[in-house]
Amino acid sequence: MIAQPEPKKDVLARRDAIVAGLRALLPPDGVIAEPLRLKPYETDGLSAYRQVPLVVVLPETTEQVAAVMAFCHREGVRVVPRGAGTSLSGGALPMADAVVLGLMRMNRILDIDYADRCAVVQAGVTNIGITQAVQERGFFYAPDPSSQLACMIGGNVNMNSGGAHCLRYGVTANNLLGLRVVTVEGEVLDIGGAHMDAAGYDWLGLLTGSEGQLAVVTEVTVRILRGPEGARAMLAAFRSNEIAGACVDSIIASGIIPVALEFMDRPAIHACEAFAHAGYPLDAEAMLIIEVEGSPAEQDDLLGRIKDICNRYDPISLKVSQSAEESAAIWKGRKGAFGAVGRISPDYLCMDGTIPTSRLPEVLGRIGAMSAEYGLQVANIFHAGDGNLHPLIMFDANDPESFRKAEHFGADILRLCVEVGGCLTGEHGVGVEKRDLMGVQFTEIELDQQRRIKSAFDPGWLLNPSKVFPLKAPPALTQAA
Amino acid sequence: MIAQPEPKKDVLARRDAIVAGLRALLPPDGVIAEPLRLKPYETDGLSAYRQVPLVVVLPETTEQVAAVMAFCHREGVRVVPRGAGTSLSGGALPMADAVVLGLMRMNRILDIDYADRCAVVQAGVTNIGITQAVQERGFFYAPDPSSQLACMIGGNVNMNSGGAHCLRYGVTANNLLGLRVVTVEGEVLDIGGAHMDAAGYDWLGLLTGSEGQLAVVTEVTVRILRGPEGARAMLAAFRSNEIAGACVDSIIASGIIPVALEFMDRPAIHACEAFAHAGYPLDAEAMLIIEVEGSPAEQDDLLGRIKDICNRYDPISLKVSQSAEESAAIWKGRKGAFGAVGRISPDYLCMDGTIPTSRLPEVLGRIGAMSAEYGLQVANIFHAGDGNLHPLIMFDANDPESFRKAEHFGADILRLCVEVGGCLTGEHGVGVEKRDLMGVQFTEIELDQQRRIKSAFDPGWLLNPSKVFPLKAPPALTQAA
Repeated sequence: MIAQPEPKKDVLARRDAIVAGLRALLPPDGVIAEPLRLKPYETDGLSAYRQVPLVVVLPETTEQVAAVMAFCHREGVRVVPRGAGTSLSGGALPMADAVVLGLMRMNRILDIDYADRCAVVQAGVTNIGITQAVQERGFFYAPDPSSQLACMIGGNVNMNSGGAHCLRYGVTANNLLGLRVVTVEGEVLDIGGAHMDAAGYDWLGLLTGSEGQLAVVTEVTVRILRGPEGARAMLAAFRSNEIAGACVDSIIASGIIPVALEFMDRPAIHACEAFAHAGYPLDAEAMLIIEVEGSPAEQDDLLGRIKDICNRYDPISLKVSQSAEESAAIWKGRKGAFGAVGRISPDYLCMDGTIPTSRLPEVLGRIGAMSAEYGLQVANIFHAGDGNLHPLIMFDANDPESFRKAEHFGADILRLCVEVGGCLTGEHGVGVEKRDLMGVQFTEIELDQQRRIKSAFDPGWLLNPSKVFPLKAPPALTQAA
Repeated sequence: MIAQPEPKKDVLARRDAIVAGLRALLPPDGVIAEPLRLKPYETDGLSAYRQVPLVVVLPETTEQVAAVMAFCHREGVRVVPRGAGTSLSGGALPMADAVVLGLMRMNRILDIDYADRCAVVQAGVTNIGITQAVQERGFFYAPDPSSQLACMIGGNVNMNSGGAHCLRYGVTANNLLGLRVVTVEGEVLDIGGAHMDAAGYDWLGLLTGSEGQLAVVTEVTVRILRGPEGARAMLAAFRSNEIAGACVDSIIASGIIPVALEFMDRPAIHACEAFAHAGYPLDAEAMLIIEVEGSPAEQDDLLGRIKDICNRYDPISLKVSQSAEESAAIWKGRKGAFGAVGRISPDYLCMDGTIPTSRLPEVLGRIGAMSAEYGLQVANIFHAGDGNLHPLIMFDANDPESFRKAEHFGADILRLCVEVGGCLTGEHGVGVEKRDLMGVQFTEIELDQQRRIKSAFDPGWLLNPSKVFPLKAPPALTQAA
């Protein structure tokens, strides 16, 4: 079990009064306190770690969130914000003495402005829900995490989520215009808006990816984009990971930015093919899915140039889709990848690190060597274009030794990412998962400066305090001169 | 004269000792203390405001910057970082009791990595210098402020600078991968690097645009991009600002993102034509310069579609360039615009606000009405595609009443930007110029939260403290729990 800060004993002792106080602020069904009904909230997408929370609240408005925050601040109670609970790094893992603040009932689209290409939505709207609200008019919301059917925009903001199409469209931070947030004291702040840039510090940027530690996001203004005329995928299969990695590097170095550039290694290809029957080449060591978009002429031009580059790497097979149906067939296996790996191994850790794209071949080789050393299978499925690795480490959760090994293997991969000039996380966040590895990336001075930013928003460290930073007492803040 | 915080009397009294202390840390010519040689540093691009600094230092390495910062921190001396001094908002305006820390001698390109498409440069490298260093290999650095021949990347980072081509490529923040900075205590921190995203908070984003208030930037890792195959411009002239504004809105709403989309109104057209003889239509009320790039086929396709849209707005003239030479002729007037306005009015204030693009016609109409009211001419030249206005308010600096009026007119324009859902600044920063208008955009609670971020980096408010926020004592920071 992951280490948690000591629960506040006085808070545990005051539980009944705290629950009653919260009930006074929310609609009748907005407070969950019964042990059986708390169970579903004990974990998130990183289900290896579990903790039943003190109580769960489900506000429906920003005002209710503000009331809850003011109350918890007054009472000295910790708060863990939660969207759909799809975090893969344990970002929404509860604490025994904390209120889980669930945003899922705040699921309304508040405004769509096609002229200025933006939409204002509540934090609990799903990622796909935004696109669904605007697609009739030919628009879409670009970031597309694999969990997009379930995950919520508030969580996307807090984890700065990415997705397969971020190579072209950027991550959440690049598609965000404004936020309405509630501070730890219960104040409502408006940050950014439907305009370029903003005066003052870039706290829109700072809050994006702050993992629920600086303020509670209740409303989000996102950029919506007009969809492309069309998109088409191609598939290229190679004799080794190194060769496929070098091909990725050449495509990027040529200046072409495909919409998506996905990499699967041999174990991933086999798992996905067995699951989806997508027609993947089983004799290949590595496979790329490359998608381009634009007018038919633009698609032809780009696919032709990418094909030429692939051909320099002696591919086993190259298949350029000629229609939307053929593209869908190519994507079918990739989109079911996580389920496919789940079929061959009931338990796996999905890692998330980034590296400079030029180091891909070397890093894949070293992950392969570690896999042999640890005796654990690994399937590599990832966004190769921006160097965002997702090694899936397979283990047996019924064997504690196997889980321990998988954790160590994962940590070694992340250390390797940092060693080659990359970083600990691409799009899943630090959460509790990578918390204790932050020292690999940052000096103590750098971590303390980041802790001081946390303290500037949340002096009492009440908001999601057990994540992101290795556990220790928060730094004292110097009194301003 | 702009209000400045009270100089610290003890610092003024200790000047000789401070100068001697700094001389011990730097090469012989690295400290400027003689009144005559301090004169050139008394102002920046906002030359209406002037203040001779206590002393100027010109370090050559990060270590020397760290030594200077540690010394000033120990001595309680304020520091104003300065690049090329091209700030249009007075971001580098000195203070009587402050050391000006000039980064211009840190002008070396440290590393170019074409495989990972990034370059590491010192803070004093000019914006154009980065492109010059990589253009032989077909690469460029995208953000292009008008001052790009002179302005330095460290200043670009601190002001999150933009430019005409940001519509397609984004501003500095979107083209930045990492920073080496020196804290107010003299510690060296490395932030970000040559990889996607980063663990921990987005302090790369936070530092970008922080106007020299959080740390001193000494090295910058930037994204370099492969240049397009080619680019071509077109010119479209219209019967009114409103019609041209509506046309901009239609182009953007169509989903086409040109590389540049520049707007000039009648006074601007006449000033530029008289100066550059670029063949601009003198009978037009408003003119757009629209540039696209890509393969010749892509250029033809995009220009054709944009032409169709322009034709719906009954243009006076449409001219699509057929060659690089014809494109250069179209750009010639725009690029000399600021000099051109300088010929018809020796003094002008260049304002900088942003608005939602759909409000362009209305805002231009209201600026016209204010111009009549104040009796001051205004020329509008701006990046219309992203709603970034640059009204040039002409006045006579020899007439204090005229200057006062120009300041009020400018403030009214910025209030109007906020009123229609925009913001105080697009790319020039707040500096001293818009400091006292921050209350128009933010509540006191929001400003105090931003001040607390400042205090988390610089508890003593020693770094460029008189900018960005309306003058008042910094907020006390609560001791962390």
